Amino acid sequence: MTTPEPAPDRLAFEHRVLPQRVLFGSGSAAEHLRAELGRQGALRPMVVVTSSSAGTARRLLDGVEVAVWFDEVVQHVPVGTAEKARAVAQDHGVDLVVSVGGGSATGLAKAVALTTGLPVVAVPTTYSGSEATDVWGLTQEGRKTTGSDERVLPRAVVYDAELTVSMPVGLSVASGLNAMAHCVDSLWGPTANPVATGLAVEGARLLGAGLPLVVADPGGLRGRELTLAGAYLAAVAFAGAGSGLHHKICHVLGGRFDLPHARTHAVVLPHVLAFNAPAAPEAVLRLAGALGADDAVGGLDALYGDLDAPRSLRELGLREEDLPEATDLVLEQAPPSNPRPVDRENLRDLLRGAWAGEPMVAGTRSSAGTRSS
Amino acid sequence: MTTPEPAPDRLAFEHRVLPQRVLFGSGSAAEHLRAELGRQGALRPMVVVTSSSAGTARRLLDGVEVAVWFDEVVQHVPVGTAEKARAVAQDHGVDLVVSVGGGSATGLAKAVALTTGLPVVAVPTTYSGSEATDVWGLTQEGRKTTGSDERVLPRAVVYDAELTVSMPVGLSVASGLNAMAHCVDSLWGPTANPVATGLAVEGARLLGAGLPLVVADPGGLRGRELTLAGAYLAAVAFAGAGSGLHHKICHVLGGRFDLPHARTHAVVLPHVLAFNAPAAPEAVLRLAGALGADDAVGGLDALYGDLDAPRSLRELGLREEDLPEATDLVLEQAPPSNPRPVDRENLRDLLRGAWAGEPMVAGTRSSAGTRSS
Repeated sequence: MTTPEPAPDRLAFEHRVLPQRVLFGSGSAAEHLRAELGRQGALRPMVVVTSSSAGTARRLLDGVEVAVWFDEVVQHVPVGTAEKARAVAQDHGVDLVVSVGGGSATGLAKAVALTTGLPVVAVPTTYSGSEATDVWGLTQEGRKTTGSDERVLPRAVVYDAELTVSMPVGLSVASGLNAMAHCVDSLWGPTANPVATGLAVEGARLLGAGLPLVVADPGGLRGRELTLAGAYLAAVAFAGAGSGLHHKICHVLGGRFDLPHARTHAVVLPHVLAFNAPAAPEAVLRLAGALGADDAVGGLDALYGDLDAPRSLRELGLREEDLPEATDLVLEQAPPSNPRPVDRENLRDLLRGAWAGEPMVAGTRSSAGTRSS
Repeated sequence: MTTPEPAPDRLAFEHRVLPQRVLFGSGSAAEHLRAELGRQGALRPMVVVTSSSAGTARRLLDGVEVAVWFDEVVQHVPVGTAEKARAVAQDHGVDLVVSVGGGSATGLAKAVALTTGLPVVAVPTTYSGSEATDVWGLTQEGRKTTGSDERVLPRAVVYDAELTVSMPVGLSVASGLNAMAHCVDSLWGPTANPVATGLAVEGARLLGAGLPLVVADPGGLRGRELTLAGAYLAAVAFAGAGSGLHHKICHVLGGRFDLPHARTHAVVLPHVLAFNAPAAPEAVLRLAGALGADDAVGGLDALYGDLDAPRSLRELGLREEDLPEATDLVLEQAPPSNPRPVDRENLRDLLRGAWAGEPMVAGTRSSAGTRSS
């Protein structure tokens, strides 16, 4: 009757619940943001905003006294940009940072908080999930440094699906599948635990229900709401469970070969899932349930079909001759916690499958996969 | 392919994530507790302990300098006991409170924190879940006052399944089903939200998998671990979603008719689930998945059979002639958020079914139920 627990091993984990207030409601961002500024007693907020969200931010804060606006948001938070933003915050006697935009705006606000200790209130406009974690990142001369620090965790997050309806469908799908990757990798991350698993499974359910609605009706709120809520749960789960194999692969592909972030995650995910599925029966059983499918690999594949999602690293610009180096680099970082042991051969097959965009079946490539073997 | 979302209504919620460190591991309580005392910089801890856990507490803290031991733990935290414990804490210059025991020990530590602001580290020995919430409760002359206050939330919880193996099977089942009620009621509580739902579903899965193992092998750790982890997730979910119909019913039955806490929850739960199931298809679909069953009502019923769980309020001492008053009292408190509208007639049927211990089918009593109608 009850779900079988195949592994006789001990359950042990450490989990830190990070304090944060989440305010979620379509059309409520202005009201929620003002209420939060009041709760925080902010008198001199700085607003960090991507240029594409500048109009939105002005509208949300209409009538609020803002100490300074900062719209020089650059991807990956260059150290120079962070230093400039910190200086501006200091010069203007800022007492709180509001970010309005995607992961880059949130990331810059976190960079300011990292050295100043200023509280952050995040208003996300994509599904990046950065707003729900204490992870910061800075880049200098092409090298990315990351870390986690409680000071950078936004005190509050204001979610409003209306702010996401202008995101193009293709970007929405890639960003949403990046969030799905947070869910899936959380099931076997190095610090995976029942809290992260519960949030990951519910996040996958919301994303699996929401994304097809976004594609079918990009301006509709229901799909946007489900996807946004799913992305939040995905980020909290991922912050708890840590980077698994999927994120190590994407980190290498993005860092060494400069592939586009969200789409790379979207392409790689089904291949990591198929790779691990035979060794993680409990995880894929629950993921299948979340996707409303009999098996998780097939369910994710069907979702990708519905979403017309990107399928191959080749189409993202990776060259076939880069695969051996990619294999070597990932192999160095492959997490020992991965449910299926990773070796050069099976990793090479995984990456080649993702490069070619071959359909996957659990644990092995399907017959179509033999084309390039 | 994806799970259908029947309700076209907006998704809106506010959710506060409460900061807490959770340390979970069998046989690790002494190590984890000492590490946490170090992190908190506690030099003069007070230990609040139920007399039945006194030996355990002495062993966990062997070699640790304890400012004062307090073992006058009484159920429901009488105001007089709380005042005495606060005075003892003050007299001994205590800087942190450690609780070792079930909900009553945790509750007393919370009562001390409520007025003194002292940090609490909880070491639970049952599945009550009080350690994971900011809810406090005090009783005076038979009246219970409850509230929520961030100060009473334990800074850290040390879970060790070895501390729970001495709990008798009957109590384990009742306490575990009380936790299951936290999960189920969280699906439709007044502040239900996706975070609470994700934790509730995973909690139900863990409890559904763990409790039969506890019954089959009360001294084994696997079932104890799953149940303890499930009880933790259940409590976090419940703290987020708030009291639904189930808890209003049990509050009345416990307060007015002095029925035993955990067993009352165990008896009432299947009847509330069957009552709400037809009006909450999404919730019961996920609950069914968590219980590894085709439908949630049948799955819970099968679990009760496996556990030889208590089935009727009659066997707990409620008299048939008390049913009209119970109906009236619950009706006053029935939450407007309940998925199925509550009226005198359907509530009376629900309570009569729970009193008689009739088998339930979703939305209506089964043919066996006609015996007492």
